[in-house]
Amino acid sequence: MLERIYKRIDELYPEMVERRRYLHQYPEVSFQEVKTAKYIAEFYEELGIPYKTNVGGNGVIATLKGNKPGRTVAIRADFDALPIQDEKDVEYKSKINGVMHACGHDGHTATLLALAKTMKEYQEELPGTIEFLHQHAEELGPGGAKPIVESGAIDHVDAVFGTHLWATTPLGKLEISRDVFMAGADRFEITICGKGGHGAYPHETRDSIVIASQLVTEIQQIVSRRIDPLETAVITIGSFHAGEAFNVIADSAKIVGTVRHINTDIQKQIMEEMEKMIRGACVSGDATYKFNYIKGYPPVVNHEEEAILVMEAGKDIEQIHTVEEVKPSMGGEDFAYYTIAKPGAFFFTGAQKEGNTYPHHHPKFDFDERAMPIAAKTLIGAYFAFQQK
Amino acid sequence: MLERIYKRIDELYPEMVERRRYLHQYPEVSFQEVKTAKYIAEFYEELGIPYKTNVGGNGVIATLKGNKPGRTVAIRADFDALPIQDEKDVEYKSKINGVMHACGHDGHTATLLALAKTMKEYQEELPGTIEFLHQHAEELGPGGAKPIVESGAIDHVDAVFGTHLWATTPLGKLEISRDVFMAGADRFEITICGKGGHGAYPHETRDSIVIASQLVTEIQQIVSRRIDPLETAVITIGSFHAGEAFNVIADSAKIVGTVRHINTDIQKQIMEEMEKMIRGACVSGDATYKFNYIKGYPPVVNHEEEAILVMEAGKDIEQIHTVEEVKPSMGGEDFAYYTIAKPGAFFFTGAQKEGNTYPHHHPKFDFDERAMPIAAKTLIGAYFAFQQK
Amino acid sequence: MLERIYKRIDELYPEMVERRRYLHQYPEVSFQEVKTAKYIAEFYEELGIPYKTNVGGNGVIATLKGNKPGRTVAIRADFDALPIQDEKDVEYKSKINGVMHACGHDGHTATLLALAKTMKEYQEELPGTIEFLHQHAEELGPGGAKPIVESGAIDHVDAVFGTHLWATTPLGKLEISRDVFMAGADRFEITICGKGGHGAYPHETRDSIVIASQLVTEIQQIVSRRIDPLETAVITIGSFHAGEAFNVIADSAKIVGTVRHINTDIQKQIMEEMEKMIRGACVSGDATYKFNYIKGYPPVVNHEEEAILVMEAGKDIEQIHTVEEVKPSMGGEDFAYYTIAKPGAFFFTGAQKEGNTYPHHHPKFDFDERAMPIAAKTLIGAYFAFQQK
Amino acid sequence: MLERIYKRIDELYPEMVERRRYLHQYPEVSFQEVKTAKYIAEFYEELGIPYKTNVGGNGVIATLKGNKPGRTVAIRADFDALPIQDEKDVEYKSKINGVMHACGHDGHTATLLALAKTMKEYQEELPGTIEFLHQHAEELGPGGAKPIVESGAIDHVDAVFGTHLWATTPLGKLEISRDVFMAGADRFEITICGKGGHGAYPHETRDSIVIASQLVTEIQQIVSRRIDPLETAVITIGSFHAGEAFNVIADSAKIVGTVRHINTDIQKQIMEEMEKMIRGACVSGDATYKFNYIKGYPPVVNHEEEAILVMEAGKDIEQIHTVEEVKPSMGGEDFAYYTIAKPGAFFFTGAQKEGNTYPHHHPKFDFDERAMPIAAKTLIGAYFAFQQK
Repeated sequence: MLERIYKRIDELYPEMVERRRYLHQYPEVSFQEVKTAKYIAEFYEELGIPYKTNVGGNGVIATLKGNKPGRTVAIRADFDALPIQDEKDVEYKSKINGVMHACGHDGHTATLLALAKTMKEYQEELPGTIEFLHQHAEELGPGGAKPIVESGAIDHVDAVFGTHLWATTPLGKLEISRDVFMAGADRFEITICGKGGHGAYPHETRDSIVIASQLVTEIQQIVSRRIDPLETAVITIGSFHAGEAFNVIADSAKIVGTVRHINTDIQKQIMEEMEKMIRGACVSGDATYKFNYIKGYPPVVNHEEEAILVMEAGKDIEQIHTVEEVKPSMGGEDFAYYTIAKPGAFFFTGAQKEGNTYPHHHPKFDFDERAMPIAAKTLIGAYFAFQQK
Repeated sequence: MLERIYKRIDELYPEMVERRRYLHQYPEVSFQEVKTAKYIAEFYEELGIPYKTNVGGNGVIATLKGNKPGRTVAIRADFDALPIQDEKDVEYKSKINGVMHACGHDGHTATLLALAKTMKEYQEELPGTIEFLHQHAEELGPGGAKPIVESGAIDHVDAVFGTHLWATTPLGKLEISRDVFMAGADRFEITICGKGGHGAYPHETRDSIVIASQLVTEIQQIVSRRIDPLETAVITIGSFHAGEAFNVIADSAKIVGTVRHINTDIQKQIMEEMEKMIRGACVSGDATYKFNYIKGYPPVVNHEEEAILVMEAGKDIEQIHTVEEVKPSMGGEDFAYYTIAKPGAFFFTGAQKEGNTYPHHHPKFDFDERAMPIAAKTLIGAYFAFQQK
Repeated sequence: MLERIYKRIDELYPEMVERRRYLHQYPEVSFQEVKTAKYIAEFYEELGIPYKTNVGGNGVIATLKGNKPGRTVAIRADFDALPIQDEKDVEYKSKINGVMHACGHDGHTATLLALAKTMKEYQEELPGTIEFLHQHAEELGPGGAKPIVESGAIDHVDAVFGTHLWATTPLGKLEISRDVFMAGADRFEITICGKGGHGAYPHETRDSIVIASQLVTEIQQIVSRRIDPLETAVITIGSFHAGEAFNVIADSAKIVGTVRHINTDIQKQIMEEMEKMIRGACVSGDATYKFNYIKGYPPVVNHEEEAILVMEAGKDIEQIHTVEEVKPSMGGEDFAYYTIAKPGAFFFTGAQKEGNTYPHHHPKFDFDERAMPIAAKTLIGAYFAFQQK
Repeated sequence: MLERIYKRIDELYPEMVERRRYLHQYPEVSFQEVKTAKYIAEFYEELGIPYKTNVGGNGVIATLKGNKPGRTVAIRADFDALPIQDEKDVEYKSKINGVMHACGHDGHTATLLALAKTMKEYQEELPGTIEFLHQHAEELGPGGAKPIVESGAIDHVDAVFGTHLWATTPLGKLEISRDVFMAGADRFEITICGKGGHGAYPHETRDSIVIASQLVTEIQQIVSRRIDPLETAVITIGSFHAGEAFNVIADSAKIVGTVRHINTDIQKQIMEEMEKMIRGACVSGDATYKFNYIKGYPPVVNHEEEAILVMEAGKDIEQIHTVEEVKPSMGGEDFAYYTIAKPGAFFFTGAQKEGNTYPHHHPKFDFDERAMPIAAKTLIGAYFAFQQK
């Protein structure tokens, strides 16, 4: 049956491309994806698959119950876009000013819709139940996955699979891990409050720039000395802003950055060590501080058994020439919440477009649309493998 | 004669106030003081004292040749204003939007004009020649003093005296030094050019914020370890700006600051040590840099003999209760160029206004106008003392 | 046959203990193990197994050719001791002042000798050839493994196996990895040569302590910013020495440390980044430097297939309750050279002694001798598994 | 009379040299100057000038009461030597192993003895009383001056004068200041107590070397940012010692240094800021510390009137070609205690020896003996000037 399904997916490729390009022209930013959700709902309405809208926000879940016994598996595609101005020169360029599908979620959606259409045709023979999980707001914390999970919408599912079309991985290649696949990504803001004053009289001030600079050099020790060298941790200070005039000592300095980790114990340790260092810097510098640490998505941790199912499914697909187990990506994804709640696996489907090497979130980002049927086949392949396990 | 002169100066106090308040309402920023220069020129025209305009720019010099033999002495008053919005609530508030005499140069001008009027009346008895030196553009580098000196306008003078009405020094007090009186003030700009990139992949970047922070901590060593501890030096970093996003490693970091010194050898050494450290930081960090060091006015160094003449003159003036030898002020002044070229002395005339403690360059700055006759008397007192030396 | 072999090994346990304790009383330091080598050679002489001495130094290799066809496998045991004073209170305490088997190589040797005696008895039935590889000088760089490999002594072998009795791992447990098992460990020495002088006149000196301290803080950035966060790297500064008097600025500062890595690309990058930072610190500080980076043993990288053979062998041994795949140990071993040259695997045989928790290289170090037959069984088990592969 | 006195001093030059060279051969270290004190006492015994021994320790004070009325003035010479091995190649080289007059106190003593002999001859004509104050233990804190002052020995004197033969100042030159002449010199010791461990496992330790290095860089900010730039302060870390092995993280790091200041407010501020920074570094680093700040001699602050008397006296002496007012020397002297208790002045008498430029405390230190009569004349000149004041 899988052979026939794969063939049918290939037949639907033109429709997949059409839908993807339509969505590409009408992107909506996170938490405001009303029209996109409506577009998805109408699709299932026409197809005759029952669905729920407003799941955990703008989420849409359609449920295809097969005629054969089996387990329930959610396949997830996200559908939000980014506040980026599309600078590509293509026909299907975004028609919405300042908004762009610069991460490929349009492709995820088109893929899942085509897969739903395909599987509807196989409903009679289908073992188990597929939940087509269309998720909103992946790009913007706290994200859509968390409220969907909290809504109870996946309480009854036995596994969750998902993929990201990945524009920097060659077409025909799958990337996956048996364990941590994507990092946790947090944000922090530190304000050092010294005492400003005339640049010629430093002794009457508490120079916030010097204190904050010292702190930046000190924070390097967290990764170099305080974290187990066999663990993974990144602390990046992305911005440092202080002072307006060349001859005035700045009252305060603000540094903002990100932490990446693949282990929540390490996340906790980083928070504690940062707090210690900030406190120490302010004791030394006779200053005060504000420290705001905003936890982002947790790491995406695959379940080994489900990851193996994906890998095996991938190896049976003609268009896939390589299935590689990779080290964790340092980027974040709220798919993390699904595999915290349920067994599951997330993977990258190679979608590098010849002649376009722009990374995700770039104004000229694009991907090779032929990756969509590959993604669809791998997801449904993993679904069947899971049923037979 | 000095007694009579002092008395005449007191009589002219109302006129002094009137002129100062007129100028206060029509301020002009540095290098654009066309109307103020015209106002001064017209004053001398009416008074019948020969004058030159456009000296080194907008400068005006009027020459009063006494009937008695003697030496030639320049008395300097600057007349430019600042690009600051006047926020005082007084009748004579600035009528020019965004421009304000926030440093008291209006007072300097009114003082010198009244002194000229007085001395014109004593021309018969006057030994030597007074050059009434009205200087433009003190507030903005490269200043007016340098081109005036370079124009040859003071080549023939034997000494130069000048004062600054000082709003944070009590009325009736003179402050002066026999040696360095005000510091040299320079500006520098450093840009560290690293290599930006994704905040999760530091190894693919050269983190300009970390390199610049390390540099800021290192620069502290110049004052603490490289400069003779008996010398005076300040290096202040007034602003540090780098990065826009929390999760992107910044391509470059810009730090801007000021150097204060009272000795040009030290200035030279600071420039050299800074260059070394920036270079070293970029070797360590595999980065490149731009370093722009803009020399400001040199230190104001008084000549001991002339400073003593001012102090002695001050002690003979009824309204002066204190003449204090002070440590150098860390502020800058282009009067420096006059005492590099010629003997001379510069001093502060206490002008603190009761109930107004706003410092110079503050939008609510003001001074006690009774300081003007005190300044006039001290300047002419020093003039006579110099003639008798 | 394996069952019988295991039984025979158990019977030889008292002899194993006796030999181990004899060797323990007569330890010899690295490169000076003449008597130990002679002891080993005499053993093989008596046993009637042909052997070579002086292999790559003091190494001894005995060759047992089985009567059945098969492949050639080396089993390695090292036999040098450490320059440490034995502080244990046992009968078999070291009789050599200042020298001690504080790492368990006596046990490795006794294990391999007993295994040789066992296998000699099975020569008729034995498939393939066993090379009993007794290696000198593991404890002191450049070690014995390198010259043994370079001598050509293992050119003809098909695989190499080895183990370390590990006193901090419980008895009955094996630890192993499919990939990197032990880190590369290097040593570096940095001397910052400034210019000394009177502590009251820093400006006449180049303060080597301040320059070196700045360098220490800067070096933290190598791990925190320059190395791929998914890689493993440690840079530890173990000692910092500078200056004799409280009031004299030190001429030079010496810092000495170690680098740990599990990837020679990272090793190379660390060396380059350190050089850059030292150079940069000296540009900043107007100082010069000496930098000596002494590469130690490379990481021990197991071959996956041979590691699996060991794990499978371990699972079949009664006394082994746990076989665990572990993260790399940060310690070093010159077994590394064997698996660079040939397929092979290295593992830890748990040997924790009840009531003695002293780590390796401690003056009171000891191990549970019952680990020796476990090690022997696992090694010969892996040998047979390799023959059947 | 002064002319005759000066002539008599010149006549005594050979005796002065003889005594100085005798003392040079038999040096005694601080607080152990028993034979030297005896030598001095015997001199006064023979001369018939009453004296006291064991003043505040090994001090000797002889009192010459003139026959004319006048005030009482102490003239101080110190007489201790240093624990340095004499490496000069001269006949009068030290005969005591490891002890040397490497600072010229032998010269001070010979000078004062010759002056006493001279003035004894002028007792009849002498106005006032001279206290010949021979002080022990200047080289080693807490010094001899403090207990002498505390013993009440100078309670009755009206002024104290003293000089140091200065080997880096040309012969014939006097150096003096009206105010601070020599700095206060303190000692501090900081121990950072982290947590040691294996060099490969930094996360299980608290790396005291990194914490202390960070502290060293931070301490630079005290001078660069926290002290008024018009004040003088030096903080030198003379030694940094931590760790024994290259691959073991050091448990603790010890840094020892000196502070120089010319103002006890600044001294207090430095102590406070250091404590803050050490505390901050330990908060950041999760470490503890010991901080021991040992105040040394306070700054030598001359009294302006007495300093002027010395300068005037100096100008009248034929062999003195230059009297220069200098900036404070950063070295320390316990003469400080005398001018805290009484009016007085201390100065340097140029004693540079042709062809020997070794500084004070150097194993080859020597001085030009012709400086001794110059010193004697200046001291007695100042004495007479003080009587006439």
